Amino acid sequence: MPDMRQDEARGRFAAAPVARLATVDPEGRPHLVPVLFAVRGDEIVTAVDGKPKRSRRLRRLHNIAVSPAVCLLVDEYDDDWDRLWWVRADGGARILQPGTSEMSDASDRADSSYEYAAAIELLRQKYPRYRRQPPDGPVIVITVLHWSGWQASAPAVA
Amino acid sequence: MPDMRQDEARGRFAAAPVARLATVDPEGRPHLVPVLFAVRGDEIVTAVDGKPKRSRRLRRLHNIAVSPAVCLLVDEYDDDWDRLWWVRADGGARILQPGTSEMSDASDRADSSYEYAAAIELLRQKYPRYRRQPPDGPVIVITVLHWSGWQASAPAVA
Repeated sequence: MPDMRQDEARGRFAAAPVARLATVDPEGRPHLVPVLFAVRGDEIVTAVDGKPKRSRRLRRLHNIAVSPAVCLLVDEYDDDWDRLWWVRADGGARILQPGTSEMSDASDRADSSYEYAAAIELLRQKYPRYRRQPPDGPVIVITVLHWSGWQASAPAVA
Repeated sequence: MPDMRQDEARGRFAAAPVARLATVDPEGRPHLVPVLFAVRGDEIVTAVDGKPKRSRRLRRLHNIAVSPAVCLLVDEYDDDWDRLWWVRADGGARILQPGTSEMSDASDRADSSYEYAAAIELLRQKYPRYRRQPPDGPVIVITVLHWSGWQASAPAVA
């Protein structure tokens, strides 16, 4: 049951359509949500899109503000258990708020605004639906400290 | 974007082949692994099966021993985002060790041994492969305190 190399783990993770984001609440309990995401190098970005789920989504944002350590997982199930694999990303998260034009004269705000726009662009490249309707809420940026992966049988040729 | 009723959430969760288990490590960081599992009422059982992954698997067991709060997630991705749904289970976990015949005279051990065997049987009923080769490691039993679910569009008829 071999481990994966870091670069293969990252590549498989990046190609998946959905990951699960685990945060920890202020009482020390884990919290899980599925997320749409994109990867650039050792950063993962995911966005809060749309207002109807605001209360639920704010929970992950609140958790990250209190405790930035996060874990993300991509896995593939198959009834043939020899084909199972998963990749985990451990890292630290921070939140970018959507830019507001009134504050764009502050240079730190401009940096953050640029980073926000770059994250949205990355998500638009991955998901066609985001091209029609880009997310407009906060963006979570995860700096991955460690990629780890496992697969049931010998490594597949990428 | 409607929430699901508890019974529908539990039913969808139970039918999924794989879930993701989040625990929290002693430093307060979240940890994620995919798990095979079975559901009976408000209990979820999952087993550690096989020795080669022992070190990795012991991490979730260690986390639970220190901090029993866990979260599990089942989700379904579809390129048609109107078909997305997920179900989350929040609860507390405890660990059952495989019985050892030398200790079966103690009644608490016998209770635990019975519960262990019942959990393995539940897993065997769900997964044909477990019938051929049942897991023989520790079992994690999660008592679910809250099932929650979400789906993008109107509830499907179950």
